[in-house]
Amino acid sequence: MAAFDTVIRNGTVATASDTFKADVAIRQGRIAAIGEAIEDADVTVDASGLLVLPGGIDSHVHISQPSGPGIVMADDFESATRAAAFGGNTFVMPYCLQPKGQPLRAALKDYHALADSACYVDHSFHLIIADPSDAVLGQELPALVADGHSSLKIFMTYQDLALSDYEILGVLQVARETGALVQIHAENYDAIRFLTDRLERAGQTAPYYHGKSRPIPVEREATHRAISLAELVDVPILIVHVSGREAVEQIRWARAHGLKVFAETCPQYLFLTAADLGIDDSYHGARCVCSPPPRDKANQEVIWDGLNDGTFTVFSSDHAPFRYDAPEGKKPGGNEVAFRHIPNGIPGIETRLPLLYSEGVLGGRITLNRFVELTSTGPAKAYGLHPRKGTIAVGSDADLVIWEEREFVLTNADLHHDVDYTPYEGHTLRAWPGVTITRGEVVWDGAFRGRAGRGRFLVCGAPSLVPPRPGAQP
Amino acid sequence: MAAFDTVIRNGTVATASDTFKADVAIRQGRIAAIGEAIEDADVTVDASGLLVLPGGIDSHVHISQPSGPGIVMADDFESATRAAAFGGNTFVMPYCLQPKGQPLRAALKDYHALADSACYVDHSFHLIIADPSDAVLGQELPALVADGHSSLKIFMTYQDLALSDYEILGVLQVARETGALVQIHAENYDAIRFLTDRLERAGQTAPYYHGKSRPIPVEREATHRAISLAELVDVPILIVHVSGREAVEQIRWARAHGLKVFAETCPQYLFLTAADLGIDDSYHGARCVCSPPPRDKANQEVIWDGLNDGTFTVFSSDHAPFRYDAPEGKKPGGNEVAFRHIPNGIPGIETRLPLLYSEGVLGGRITLNRFVELTSTGPAKAYGLHPRKGTIAVGSDADLVIWEEREFVLTNADLHHDVDYTPYEGHTLRAWPGVTITRGEVVWDGAFRGRAGRGRFLVCGAPSLVPPRPGAQP
Amino acid sequence: MAAFDTVIRNGTVATASDTFKADVAIRQGRIAAIGEAIEDADVTVDASGLLVLPGGIDSHVHISQPSGPGIVMADDFESATRAAAFGGNTFVMPYCLQPKGQPLRAALKDYHALADSACYVDHSFHLIIADPSDAVLGQELPALVADGHSSLKIFMTYQDLALSDYEILGVLQVARETGALVQIHAENYDAIRFLTDRLERAGQTAPYYHGKSRPIPVEREATHRAISLAELVDVPILIVHVSGREAVEQIRWARAHGLKVFAETCPQYLFLTAADLGIDDSYHGARCVCSPPPRDKANQEVIWDGLNDGTFTVFSSDHAPFRYDAPEGKKPGGNEVAFRHIPNGIPGIETRLPLLYSEGVLGGRITLNRFVELTSTGPAKAYGLHPRKGTIAVGSDADLVIWEEREFVLTNADLHHDVDYTPYEGHTLRAWPGVTITRGEVVWDGAFRGRAGRGRFLVCGAPSLVPPRPGAQP
Amino acid sequence: MAAFDTVIRNGTVATASDTFKADVAIRQGRIAAIGEAIEDADVTVDASGLLVLPGGIDSHVHISQPSGPGIVMADDFESATRAAAFGGNTFVMPYCLQPKGQPLRAALKDYHALADSACYVDHSFHLIIADPSDAVLGQELPALVADGHSSLKIFMTYQDLALSDYEILGVLQVARETGALVQIHAENYDAIRFLTDRLERAGQTAPYYHGKSRPIPVEREATHRAISLAELVDVPILIVHVSGREAVEQIRWARAHGLKVFAETCPQYLFLTAADLGIDDSYHGARCVCSPPPRDKANQEVIWDGLNDGTFTVFSSDHAPFRYDAPEGKKPGGNEVAFRHIPNGIPGIETRLPLLYSEGVLGGRITLNRFVELTSTGPAKAYGLHPRKGTIAVGSDADLVIWEEREFVLTNADLHHDVDYTPYEGHTLRAWPGVTITRGEVVWDGAFRGRAGRGRFLVCGAPSLVPPRPGAQP
Repeated sequence: MAAFDTVIRNGTVATASDTFKADVAIRQGRIAAIGEAIEDADVTVDASGLLVLPGGIDSHVHISQPSGPGIVMADDFESATRAAAFGGNTFVMPYCLQPKGQPLRAALKDYHALADSACYVDHSFHLIIADPSDAVLGQELPALVADGHSSLKIFMTYQDLALSDYEILGVLQVARETGALVQIHAENYDAIRFLTDRLERAGQTAPYYHGKSRPIPVEREATHRAISLAELVDVPILIVHVSGREAVEQIRWARAHGLKVFAETCPQYLFLTAADLGIDDSYHGARCVCSPPPRDKANQEVIWDGLNDGTFTVFSSDHAPFRYDAPEGKKPGGNEVAFRHIPNGIPGIETRLPLLYSEGVLGGRITLNRFVELTSTGPAKAYGLHPRKGTIAVGSDADLVIWEEREFVLTNADLHHDVDYTPYEGHTLRAWPGVTITRGEVVWDGAFRGRAGRGRFLVCGAPSLVPPRPGAQP
Repeated sequence: MAAFDTVIRNGTVATASDTFKADVAIRQGRIAAIGEAIEDADVTVDASGLLVLPGGIDSHVHISQPSGPGIVMADDFESATRAAAFGGNTFVMPYCLQPKGQPLRAALKDYHALADSACYVDHSFHLIIADPSDAVLGQELPALVADGHSSLKIFMTYQDLALSDYEILGVLQVARETGALVQIHAENYDAIRFLTDRLERAGQTAPYYHGKSRPIPVEREATHRAISLAELVDVPILIVHVSGREAVEQIRWARAHGLKVFAETCPQYLFLTAADLGIDDSYHGARCVCSPPPRDKANQEVIWDGLNDGTFTVFSSDHAPFRYDAPEGKKPGGNEVAFRHIPNGIPGIETRLPLLYSEGVLGGRITLNRFVELTSTGPAKAYGLHPRKGTIAVGSDADLVIWEEREFVLTNADLHHDVDYTPYEGHTLRAWPGVTITRGEVVWDGAFRGRAGRGRFLVCGAPSLVPPRPGAQP
Repeated sequence: MAAFDTVIRNGTVATASDTFKADVAIRQGRIAAIGEAIEDADVTVDASGLLVLPGGIDSHVHISQPSGPGIVMADDFESATRAAAFGGNTFVMPYCLQPKGQPLRAALKDYHALADSACYVDHSFHLIIADPSDAVLGQELPALVADGHSSLKIFMTYQDLALSDYEILGVLQVARETGALVQIHAENYDAIRFLTDRLERAGQTAPYYHGKSRPIPVEREATHRAISLAELVDVPILIVHVSGREAVEQIRWARAHGLKVFAETCPQYLFLTAADLGIDDSYHGARCVCSPPPRDKANQEVIWDGLNDGTFTVFSSDHAPFRYDAPEGKKPGGNEVAFRHIPNGIPGIETRLPLLYSEGVLGGRITLNRFVELTSTGPAKAYGLHPRKGTIAVGSDADLVIWEEREFVLTNADLHHDVDYTPYEGHTLRAWPGVTITRGEVVWDGAFRGRAGRGRFLVCGAPSLVPPRPGAQP
Repeated sequence: MAAFDTVIRNGTVATASDTFKADVAIRQGRIAAIGEAIEDADVTVDASGLLVLPGGIDSHVHISQPSGPGIVMADDFESATRAAAFGGNTFVMPYCLQPKGQPLRAALKDYHALADSACYVDHSFHLIIADPSDAVLGQELPALVADGHSSLKIFMTYQDLALSDYEILGVLQVARETGALVQIHAENYDAIRFLTDRLERAGQTAPYYHGKSRPIPVEREATHRAISLAELVDVPILIVHVSGREAVEQIRWARAHGLKVFAETCPQYLFLTAADLGIDDSYHGARCVCSPPPRDKANQEVIWDGLNDGTFTVFSSDHAPFRYDAPEGKKPGGNEVAFRHIPNGIPGIETRLPLLYSEGVLGGRITLNRFVELTSTGPAKAYGLHPRKGTIAVGSDADLVIWEEREFVLTNADLHHDVDYTPYEGHTLRAWPGVTITRGEVVWDGAFRGRAGRGRFLVCGAPSLVPPRPGAQP
């Protein structure tokens, strides 16, 4: 009997800090050894001349999430996690949305029911706190965090989701007391409402005006406010989907003042601009409607700088899949032809890693180690999954991707989500996952070998981005 | 015959990104495997319940370096590397100082002659460019960098060392063309001269006034200038021994503008203040005279923030050993009783790691992974030694330290340098290296087992802090 | 018949830009000539060796304003304007508070009824928009601004006053369309509520904790938000009573980005600190409870810098008079012994100018011209009163103060408000108005000669801090 | 006998702070009265419907100044002050350049010899310290400042002019001790030399590359350094001809930190861009070669913001007149066809005020009062001429300009300097001085009535931009 189940042989392994040639041996789904010339195993995967990286963690995806009357997400857990695996991801973190007036436990149960038999890769849930009643803050949340639901999400915009500053402070206070990490969507709801009303009165309703309804100060202001509220409570936070210079400056200001403010950005802020929303009244640009909206080339450069200098800890997709040409999707029927009614969000679960690898690593903009940190190790640490997930280390789950460099022009037909378009149609990619392995099992190596339902739910532990309090064991 | 020479068993391994339980197996001085339950080896080191970290790299030490008429450094390569090993270091990077008007090769030969048979741990040399003549810039430096001398150092202060901005630009241009990294000592020489002259005219010559002769704007200005010159040439630089807020702000400004500006700080800026220079006319404070001088508590906090937020890549000692009570040292005889004549620099090669481990890691100020990055992986990448040095990875040199947590009050008698004092006399430490291993050989495990001359000289390769240019293999 | 009614002879006249020796001749309450050796007049005031300055404009005072159940302001229009005249003011700008659900016109009528026969000096009203209903924004406000009520005030804190961001945007939009200037009280209401609740749960209710309930980020956040909302609407604003560094930094950021953001500060941020709120559980510190609360010495220095560098346009008192030892005032009876119940605000209408003159002008911190700008010309321009008010120029109202330099220790018995204390008890002053002249009439020259009811209401015109739109006559 | 020599009747007078209708009466060259309906005078000037402003002070002009071998300035004192008067200036401040190794007094005598009988308007001299020897710093300068030569100028660039930081500190120290104000030309000489050498080696010698030889960091760095050196000595400075965002940010940083750093900008940074240097190898662009070079549109906007927000105290021309098509001017003969040999500087003494009035005041970018402050009052205060010069006040010299609004396209034939081009050829102007009065005498009112030699030399007093030290009389 071989000592190991599988050996990845002769590859170049990269972690968030190191790059080195080694064999990787897997036993019972976990990494059992990393070494030179490891003895034979039942299965050998040849990685000669190739990079072996930790599987991607897409820590910001929306799957089967209610999004408004008549609107339905295009991906369920099956299609989303299938696309994820094709795109080099071995872990996804969708959201469990608390309905107003209802307990979180019940909602979580519903999401589990949808996910349990459907997933190809492992997953956990962030909890969206839409209704931080005294009961939720005082009893339910502390218990849920104790059970490993340590990642919370709050919104500063969207009807029925936006919390007041008083409510935000309440959630942050619970996070401080329980050790949870709070994600914040930072846009000023009142400002968006005001600008949208004004645009509509002026008849400016094409998708292009979606961007005008949420200009840069709308995001900068909410970012500053989120930071200030966290400062008052003295608790780490993570600002999601940062779009450009002014929000980045707020985050840098906070970090330079010793505040524990972390940040995420997404492919749309590196590869799309406001021009992708369309410059005329056609609805074509509805495909790229997301919030915050894409900005311009100069802001893209700021995001690249932020990937480099440590401003960002997480690079996720914010996958929010809606079909374009469907009544339940982006293109409205009837008379609701206005950007206000376009569901917010774009698909990206499958393209996130190849886009960043192609332009970032092969384009010489970020180091390979930084790629690993942003796409895998950083989210694993932020959400208490490290070192079980997010790295190639002894004892970690054998979630691995072997990258293949090849140049091709992306078209939606190449993809495996259930969306009828990709915002990156026509982009040239220079790499794609050649092999995806989850817990030691090859799910993609040119052929798709995944089994729906094999992906497991994981509870999260304590975030490890900041030092433990003195006295705790390191 | 056992497969491995040595196994470190049952420890918790930490790298700059990961922390995990594993055995570490060593063969022929290099790490051959990291895994669970690795088979027996000739030597077994038990690390149960202990941390196994990459050996420290002290990338800023001065050994046997000429320091002015009548002044002699207290440590030679033997005593300095001995102290280094006791303090958990497995690699040191002293300086080779070019004498004015002389070629660098000749100077390098002299330093090799001093070091070759004396060192207990591996080492390389940074080249101090004191005389960037056309011949040096045009011929000698490119050849030296090609030979692996890829780390250069320049000074903006000190008589006979300070380069003009024109000369600095010349060195930076060579660095850009050859891929070398330039360290910069950023203090404004003219300003220091002016202030020193003025202080002396006022009879203010006690060690306390050393600090007054190099106030914060002196360092901030030179830092801004160094950044600007590097910006003009478009080349990475590394600012050494940053002391406080205003220089840190300049570095953050640069990084936020996409410039590749890296930075180092040292224990004296975390653990000493201007008060340690003395508040009266006694010479006691001469012990802590170094440049830039220690600042105050508020500036210490800024340095801690910078260790956390990625402003700093390197934490070194700037070990510059002079005896206090000796004619060739800090305490002058005759009538040269003035701070101007005190040799600049303090010892620290042995205390650097225990100080940062105690207060930083155990004090809850930085994560364990950040400790590894700052003290080992960061310098290894900055100076082109990674992954051979600076991490625990397959193929890397087996340079390891097993840490032991125990609380004691530091006194100079505990130390192994040849200096008659430590600036940290009386500080409480909470950890000390229990075992130091260099290239697989235990040199310290409670008993000192090192052999002078075993330490090897290593040439450096290209720095790997920034992405390679597109097209190069990652 | 003399050509002039009154001549101020041989003084040194100072405006916001100039200082020069000249006689000032008055006819029918206005300045008719400024010249050398002006011919005789009916009345001659000798100002030899003295400074003749424009009368102070206290553009932020609260008089007879409802302040909560059981709370009554100590000053009515008679006592407040009497104290104003003693303190060198010739114009005051109290507030007209819109009651919730009621029109502004009615409120304004009530305030006129109180003020009309009571005032010793001229005055106008700022309108506090507490209820920006569609009717108020769409009809009433545009009409009121057209009638000369061009100064609006909004609150981001206080129960029943705090507007939502949506409401603030609505008011700003009206201001943009009508040319009004909006004053903003920038503190985050929700944050204050949250912190107050938390402090009360911890039993921390002494006046000292008033400061803890509104720490610096509470003001900085609201300042940033106010700036952002004004940026979205593209309209000038004026942030009132700025207390220290972090809010100042936001304002400087805005101005450096071309935004028309103006600012006011007050004596309490130059002369009081948090220590004046008391350090124990006594109620003594209730005397200094105001919002934002006084900070510390370092923040005072930032305010002084801001007076110098143009960050501030207005220096007002924020006079909010409550007796200390009275059931309707600061010291509560019954069981409402908690900082939450202390009426916010302190008296200062009479001491504002002597404090700033003594410490600012005579203390060498600001120029004399800057003193005039901050205390008279700046507010006159901000609120559309210039050049009728706020300067010494031909055609302007003859509102003048002749300053007398003399040193004395201030005690509340020296003052003429109806408050039983002054926060500046025991401060040493070095100057006091020797003569106060309003519209050509001497009201104070050692003896008080004012007549209640002589003070007139003035409507305001368009602010003149920013250039008129192109095409308008300069 | 009339009481007054001249009355300007029915105009609207504007100072740096006020705008009001009044007559202005002049006696013996000084303003004797400002009032309503002033009695008749020998001469009446009708200003009905027109603005009456203080005469412009062009505080940065070069006249008859040696500029390198074979290079001769196009304007002498006669032509330069003639053009100044046409352009609305009543005072000019040229430079007296100390030749290396020579005393300042001798140089000053030479400039007086050239100026005394030639000037149409009053003038003073700034002293350029090119050789701060011990004798100059220790004896000559203190004596000169005591005699009223209180404005010094130093250069951080240009061969034979650039001072070392040590020398700069020496000059600043003298300024601190004597109360002089130091102007600083802030560009890094070594960096310019290095970049110029590199450009020339690459054959890039067209005027376009002048801009490339002094990019933005060259100015930003020197600005930061100048500020730092002034901070060390604790003395006010004035940075001349600031060109754009990055230098402005340094100045704002300094002011926000309480440093007394003042700044000047010039028309070329509002109305020219790098494109005016030419985009090809023709020499046409040599006409616009000045230092710092013009930047781009975005930097122009930053300069406009700085005019508004108080960053700038002085708006001058930096008139440096060289003919284009002349052997002693811009267009080189022989083989010296390279930007290095183009004399630096452009003409502007006559166009400065009409350009700023047209675009700034009439274009709605700055207020009328700010125009007066920047072009007259500010420089008068900076250089100790106020209130004798720089305002319309009783006792001030009757230096006045009545502005006429009319639109025309500027061509060099309209101008009165001795230069064969204007950089603003083809610009549309919307105003021009209708009447220029110096010390009560009309020199231009459609006809030129000036007399060469009438302009007097004035010594300067103490700058009045900052408060006098406590104890001094205000």
